This record gives sequence, structure tokens and C-alpha cells, in this order.
Amino acid sequence: MYTTMSSSTTTTTSPSKPQFRNKLVSSLNDIFVFVGGAILALLLLWSFCSFVSPNSTITFNISSPTRPKPTKLVEPTNSETTPPMNCAQNELAHDPPDHTFYDDPTLTYTIDQKPIKNWDQKRQHWLAHHPSLAQPDRILLITGSQPGPCKSPVGDHLLLRFFKNKVDYCRIHGHDIFYNNALLHPKMTTFWAKLPAVRSAMVAHPEAEWIWWVDSDAAFTDMDFKLPLSRYANHNLIVHGWPNMVYEERSWVSLNAGVFLIRNSQWAMEFIHAWAGMGPQTPNYSQWSKTQKATLPDKLYPEADDQSGLIYLLLEENQKWADKIYLEHEFYFEGYWKEIVGSLRNVSDKYLEMERRSTAGGRG
Amino acid sequence: MYTTMSSSTTTTTSPSKPQFRNKLVSSLNDIFVFVGGAILALLLLWSFCSFVSPNSTITFNISSPTRPKPTKLVEPTNSETTPPMNCAQNELAHDPPDHTFYDDPTLTYTIDQKPIKNWDQKRQHWLAHHPSLAQPDRILLITGSQPGPCKSPVGDHLLLRFFKNKVDYCRIHGHDIFYNNALLHPKMTTFWAKLPAVRSAMVAHPEAEWIWWVDSDAAFTDMDFKLPLSRYANHNLIVHGWPNMVYEERSWVSLNAGVFLIRNSQWAMEFIHAWAGMGPQTPNYSQWSKTQKATLPDKLYPEADDQSGLIYLLLEENQKWADKIYLEHEFYFEGYWKEIVGSLRNVSDKYLEMERRSTAGGRG
Repeated sequence: MYTTMSSSTTTTTSPSKPQFRNKLVSSLNDIFVFVGGAILALLLLWSFCSFVSPNSTITFNISSPTRPKPTKLVEPTNSETTPPMNCAQNELAHDPPDHTFYDDPTLTYTIDQKPIKNWDQKRQHWLAHHPSLAQPDRILLITGSQPGPCKSPVGDHLLLRFFKNKVDYCRIHGHDIFYNNALLHPKMTTFWAKLPAVRSAMVAHPEAEWIWWVDSDAAFTDMDFKLPLSRYANHNLIVHGWPNMVYEERSWVSLNAGVFLIRNSQWAMEFIHAWAGMGPQTPNYSQWSKTQKATLPDKLYPEADDQSGLIYLLLEENQKWADKIYLEHEFYFEGYWKEIVGSLRNVSDKYLEMERRSTAGGRG
Repeated sequence: MYTTMSSSTTTTTSPSKPQFRNKLVSSLNDIFVFVGGAILALLLLWSFCSFVSPNSTITFNISSPTRPKPTKLVEPTNSETTPPMNCAQNELAHDPPDHTFYDDPTLTYTIDQKPIKNWDQKRQHWLAHHPSLAQPDRILLITGSQPGPCKSPVGDHLLLRFFKNKVDYCRIHGHDIFYNNALLHPKMTTFWAKLPAVRSAMVAHPEAEWIWWVDSDAAFTDMDFKLPLSRYANHNLIVHGWPNMVYEERSWVSLNAGVFLIRNSQWAMEFIHAWAGMGPQTPNYSQWSKTQKATLPDKLYPEADDQSGLIYLLLEENQKWADKIYLEHEFYFEGYWKEIVGSLRNVSDKYLEMERRSTAGGRG
């Protein structure tokens, strides 16, 4: 069985959405634990600031070396300007002449189109032409917030700190990270905004086997944590949740959609299409709002939301999706900060004790 | 000769320091250019927000897999939790038993100690024991701002956007990035805060051949730009500046210290020691303030600053340092936004024209 030193991996302020979203800051609980470089915890209760007030034009700005570009641009024009390639470096200077899915003029990054067909084959073909990017289980972490300033006076400072936390985690573990602050679908605001971002990242980053969505207000509390990917080998979507709360209680807080890992795959193309189909950009939104409320007795507010949508698909389209969805509950893949903050002192003490023992016993 | 499509690489708002620092936002010029994923420009005039109001305890929080840790912590405890290693991934799970400079109990990351001795040999020895991290010309970009919220209402939002710009650039080019928001020396605030950050990063990241300091208010305007490292092969510090303005005019704006590239080397250890020796943490600060003012006739304000200090060392300790300092002026390694913003439309047009030609002529 898998265990971690830390009781939690990421924490978020948003599981109890109705209480905390769209309110001004009601409380601030800032705990900064730093022990031996191993644990970084920053837990905050604050107004949910992401994608609440879109005030920018829609601009697709996921920049990536893997996106289609004029060939002229990516040819090195001067050998002096080209540093030696190494395997950690992206292949900016190398774009093979072979056609890939990027050459299909009907290719789209947007979520309101039908799923791309044969995506697994297209990805594999692209990877075969970009072998240095074809690393097993390569991860791209996606996070983001609204295009304009946060309404809360301290909001953007916290977003900056939360982003730093994620960048630090990704640097340590060799993951790529992308911060999306463009609203990719004008009607998919607030919690729905993550789906267009994940969908477009799948296409813009075929080198990534996994897309890891992490809400902007979530922080890594154990910087040494490694995703136990081998246990997810047969699954395509990993989310923190409890099966009995999903299938017996039919509760809308039986899982949390603020942090999830999704395999860049045909399955994900189709799942996101079904998932996003309950969103505010569809003509069926009001009907889905009623259906979700009827399906999940404890759902607090009337509009359809992404988290309820995910639970609905587990309950009502179980045969179609559930065997590829892993409900992680053996450790805190994600947890509400109030449940976790009390345990951080124990974690710090354990690490300190390990350091003391290590120092006393030499390097053995 | 080296040329770039873009007239500028990074822009900053801070070269004319006295006018713009410590003031509230007086103007906002937000231009967002996005063309084919190649150019991202975000140029803003705003109050300089970095390290102005330190209000946090001093916490050393550069987290790195290369820092000393108890051996127990870095041994994989469960094979299931360890994803396959790849060459792009840091060596968290691998800490050879051999002693390195990290085992020296007198090792310090702080700037107010004497330079580490034999740093080049110590780095090489460490690299020999961590071969997968020993990539030629590996770059770590360092940026940062003050620990607390910015006083300007829009300041932290802009810091978030500027940080995103740097993270995007680093992802594309395979550079590591670290955002420092800890004040590493209580007296080295504002523009002096960069020196302790760079000094500690050199020790925390022996895998980095180059440390690239970029001010928090600077943005990359050409996301395809590559540092022309081969032309810097015989130099240890690269900064944007004009030799005639340094040596003939003795002007305090003859170079800009807001963006510089410094080789992780014994030379840098000693140069930063000399450079920081004019800072507010030393008993000689007021004397240095007078000396700098006397040396640079156009210097506008009385306190010693880092930029004037760098020019002073070029002028008055020329024999000791200048042959390893490269004043880049053939392209905008860094430039003041007002000088650059007008040229961005031309750059966009050129890229668009290249895209049109590429589309018309196929992929050849």
C-alpha cells in the first residue's frame, strides 16, 4: 500500500464551493512551514478569484514549441545563436518536415467542436517524429486564473505565491507548467474555465502523457511528493474522492474536481466532450442544472457545475466511463485546507526527527 | 554579426530608476501582442514593486533537489511511488554517498560571508557525481519581489503576469526558473535584494552554469529568442550597456543592472562580494554613496545603488574585472520599454508576413 510522510499533497480552499466562492475575504489563515526544503505549506482561506470577472478579449495564448509554426521561424538562422541541444531542452530548432496532425487545416484547440478523431494514433505519430520529447509519463501541470486583476485586495498576491509554489514543485520534479489567464470560451467562466484549458493543452502539448489540472488556489504541501503513476497505469482520470460517497450517498462533495490528472488520450477527448456538455455554453445548461440537482440531493446551488457533472457521469454513465476513473482516497491527492492544516505540524516534526537522526548517525 | 527578428529581448520599466520607483502608478500602458505563438509582449509602466516593503521574517526558501538533505529522505521508500527516471527529471531519488561541498558544515548561502574558496573545483566535483545534471550551459533564471503584497492595487496582478511570461519563456527553452520572495538579507532591500538571491542560487544550484537575473518588472518580448552563449564563452558577466557611455561619459545609465547573466564561478563569487560590498548592509555604505556620486556625475540620487556600483567597478577596478564583463549592445539584451514599444508592431508584421509566405508556399 502506498503511504506518504505527509498527510496531504495539495490542498485547496474550494471544496465547499458555495460558502467560499464569490465572497470577499472573510478570514486569512497564513501558515508558512519550511523544514529542510522538504515541505512547503501555504494554506489560505480567501475569496475564490479564478475566472470570476473575465474582462479581456478571448486570446488563445498557450505558447508551445509544439504548435504549428512557419518552417522559416524554427530553422536556426545563425549557428552562433543556437546553444548546444540537450535532452532537457525543447526542440525549438527542430521541426521535421513530415506532416503531422498540426498540418490538418481543420484542427481546432477549442472545446465546442467535436472530439478530435484517432487522437491516440495522431499523438503517437507526432511523438515518433519528436523522439527527444517522447519521455514516458511526461506531465504538464495546468493552472490559471482570470485575465484581469482579482477583486480581493490580497488576491493577486496570493495567486502569485500559489503559482510560485507550483513552479517550485514542477522544477524539482521536472514537470512542465503552464499558467492560463485567457478565458478560452466566453461562457465557460469560474469552475467551468478549466475544461477548455485542459482540452487545448492536450492538443498544444502532444508530448505530455498526463495533463495535471491544479486550481490556482491549491498549494503543494509536500514538495517531495511523487505521483504514484504506476498504480494509475490502467486509468485515464485520477481525482480525489470516496466511492461510497459517490455511489451510496450520491453526494456532490464525494469528490473534488479542483485537482485532477487526465491522460492525454482519445478517451480524454471524449470524456471532456461529455463533461463540458453540461456547461453554460450549451443550450442544455438549464436542463442539466435541474438534472444535477435532482441527482445529487445535497447539492447546494441550482446551476450545473463541473464537479457535479463529473459525479453525474460516474453515476449515470457508469458503464461508459467509470472503469477508467480512479477515485484516489488512500492519501490526500487533494484536500480541503481545514482538514489538513492541523496535521502539518506533525509532518514538520517527523522531518525534523529524521534530520536529527541522520545528523547523529552520519550519512549512512 | 548576431541579429534578431525582434529589436528587443527583455524590456524593463526600471532604467530611469529615480523617476519610477517608490511612486504610485502614474500611467498604464498595456499592450498585448500575440502573433503565431512567437512574440509575447507585455509592457507596462507602473510603480516598481520589488522588495520595497519587506514585512516578513527572513526565511531562506530556495528549495532545490541539490541542497543537502538527510540521506533517509531521498532514498526511494517504495518503488511504486517512483516514476521512471528520465534525463529531463531532476535527481531527487539519487544522492550519491560521496562527500561534496554540501557536507562542509561551514558552507553558507548568505552574502555577508567571504566568498567560497575553490568554487570552480567544488562545482566540477559535484557535477562529476551528478552527471545527468551536467548539461553544458545550463541556465537558471532568477527573479523575485518583496514578501508581502504590493502597495499598488494592480501591482501583484502585473507581477503574476510578468512571472507567467518568464515561466513560459523558460518552459519553451528548457531553462529552470526560481521566483524569490524572501528577503535574504534584512538590509539589502529594493535593487540590492538581487545580489543575495543570485549568490545563494549559485550555491543551491551547482548544476547551473549560468544564473540569469531578470527583474520582476521585465518581460520577454521575443519568446523565440535564444541567448547567443557562444559569443560569451570567454566572459563571466553579461549586461546590456554602451562602452562609450561607461568609459567616456561615466554615466550612471550607461548600463542596466536589471537583467544580467552571470557564470556560476569563482570569479562570480568574488565579483558579487566586491559588488555587494557597496551595499546598505556594510559599514561603508555612506562612504560608498559619496564615492559613487563623485564618480558618476549624472547620478540622480545620493544613496549607493547596485547599478552605479557595477559601473564603478568597471571604471575604477577595470584591470581586475572588465575583461570578463561583456557589455552587450548589438541587440536589446534588455531595454527600457519606451524605447522598444514602438518597434513591436514592426516585429508582429514581419512574423505575420513570414506566416503568410509559409502558408502560400507550403511547408518548404
